[in-house]
Amino acid sequence: MSERRPRLDPAVARIRNEVVASLGLLDAQSGLIIVACSGGPDSMALASAAAFALPRRGFEVCAVIIDHGLQPQSREVADRTAAQLLDRGIAASVRSVVTEVGGQGVEDAARQARYAALAATAQETGAVAVMLGHTLDDQAETVLLGLARGSGARSLAGMRARRGLFVRPLLAVRRAETVRSCEAEGLTPWHDPMNDDRAYLRVRVRHEVLPLLEQELGPGVAGALARTASQLADDSALLDEQADRLFRDAAVPGTRTETAMLAATLAEAPPALRRRALRLGVLAAGAPGSGLTFEHLVATERLLGKSNAPAAISLPGGLAARRRGNQLVIGRADCTDQGIVWQP
Amino acid sequence: MSERRPRLDPAVARIRNEVVASLGLLDAQSGLIIVACSGGPDSMALASAAAFALPRRGFEVCAVIIDHGLQPQSREVADRTAAQLLDRGIAASVRSVVTEVGGQGVEDAARQARYAALAATAQETGAVAVMLGHTLDDQAETVLLGLARGSGARSLAGMRARRGLFVRPLLAVRRAETVRSCEAEGLTPWHDPMNDDRAYLRVRVRHEVLPLLEQELGPGVAGALARTASQLADDSALLDEQADRLFRDAAVPGTRTETAMLAATLAEAPPALRRRALRLGVLAAGAPGSGLTFEHLVATERLLGKSNAPAAISLPGGLAARRRGNQLVIGRADCTDQGIVWQP
Repeated sequence: MSERRPRLDPAVARIRNEVVASLGLLDAQSGLIIVACSGGPDSMALASAAAFALPRRGFEVCAVIIDHGLQPQSREVADRTAAQLLDRGIAASVRSVVTEVGGQGVEDAARQARYAALAATAQETGAVAVMLGHTLDDQAETVLLGLARGSGARSLAGMRARRGLFVRPLLAVRRAETVRSCEAEGLTPWHDPMNDDRAYLRVRVRHEVLPLLEQELGPGVAGALARTASQLADDSALLDEQADRLFRDAAVPGTRTETAMLAATLAEAPPALRRRALRLGVLAAGAPGSGLTFEHLVATERLLGKSNAPAAISLPGGLAARRRGNQLVIGRADCTDQGIVWQP
Repeated sequence: MSERRPRLDPAVARIRNEVVASLGLLDAQSGLIIVACSGGPDSMALASAAAFALPRRGFEVCAVIIDHGLQPQSREVADRTAAQLLDRGIAASVRSVVTEVGGQGVEDAARQARYAALAATAQETGAVAVMLGHTLDDQAETVLLGLARGSGARSLAGMRARRGLFVRPLLAVRRAETVRSCEAEGLTPWHDPMNDDRAYLRVRVRHEVLPLLEQELGPGVAGALARTASQLADDSALLDEQADRLFRDAAVPGTRTETAMLAATLAEAPPALRRRALRLGVLAAGAPGSGLTFEHLVATERLLGKSNAPAAISLPGGLAARRRGNQLVIGRADCTDQGIVWQP
């Protein structure tokens, strides 16, 4: 052991272990691993642990700092983060992105731009994985935000440990451990003022909701939320697979401008699969996923009934669902020959 | 319409509609329906709505007030509740139960005694259903309590709208609506001081957690929690059914003192079903359901692996799981010929 410190800090050791364990999620045995680094404690601790533990296991490591340009000092923060890593012999580079804020809000726009830039960097460099610093606290917050939306197992399942090239080694690590790890390593992480801006729902969840839950329900609540996420991710994966099969069984081939499905096939299926298959049908017809709610699916489901069914159901994206003989048809609302009787 | 009031209060109308809609959950078209009545606003509003709406649809209604005898004035409260209902021509009777507080705490013991007494009353009278006054607020609280345990879809699924004879017509009604309904009907519900005792986790969820969630995440959060519960109940029902089939496929017949399952059959199954089937196996071997955690199941699952599997896994109820050739065996720990290497 060639540690500079005589005793390895437990937080540092824990994070290194988790980073090594996450290699089990990869398909590759060697190659370049990019660590997405915001400069905050989570990703600084991750970058440091990856740079220590992965090269001796056959991987190269490079930290990539995305500069969103949304705050006046963002370039300075990015450069300072890169300099800290380079000082320790950790390869690091800054990539600037343009965040186009559309209808979805700054947070979402910045996230989309960030993931796109990371994916592009991975493709350009032939990287085998992009590691992200999300912690157990982030996962618990994600579950609570999903709960607030009430959109079922899909949103409660939180973030996956791996999704395509993206890998999250720290989902079992508390945020406080990443702070301790940075301290022990002599790293000075950047504290993003946006993380304290109560205008953001996630910030309120972090600073108000989760602490109160821990106080009232017990300190294990963040872990319980993360455990729930992991169980529901397994449930969702299986149910989505089965619903996909149901959708393909029910879909009537040969239609182009609309999705048609056999009503009886859907009606006979268990509710958990029926609603998921209906969702696939509505998405296949071109509805935007973000505007589609559980209420839309429950309303569409009523078209499968033999009695008391409405004539048509209005859906997001200018679409409508209606019955045509033994089929349930989802197409453009202006193609529907009956009036729209239901609005979400 | 023979209403005493010139205009029907919306809360009263809403609750009557929900009670009538819940008849769709019953198998019977007529008969006696028992309304479990604590004297609180939820069940007083339910009893009043049921007594108004159900007789004209062919059902008899009788309110049953359970006296737990846990508080000095409990008999008086029960009698006063019965008198209020009888005054309005609603059949009502008080039934005393003995609550035996074992290891599980007063709340759980009282609930068990109450459900047992209601089931017994239903059997003695040949009732076709027992209606319970749980509201959307109760459901949201149940989901939050389940979240704190981190025990997956089963506990997040909350209370079912129907379970055997028990029916919950008010799961879409806010508690505040039941209070308004009682006011409009001139009923004086009893306010249970236990509902303000912060020593109870559920009381803290009601008075601290849910109000903060509504403040920080938006007023729709209780509804979102209830919607989540209903979606996860559908998911759970399907996955439990599939896991039951997996368990029967994997179980090796002919064993008496232990449960033996084919390891390969379990190993090949999707994780969501494998863990549920393992749970069924552990329960079949006699483990108490309350002590069995997700961690136990994940640990037991490791026995299915080809390498790095521990020799045995200690389980609640003095049980242990171990490998015997191509079987996973769950039996008494003292029957295990290898040491217990894992403690929860």
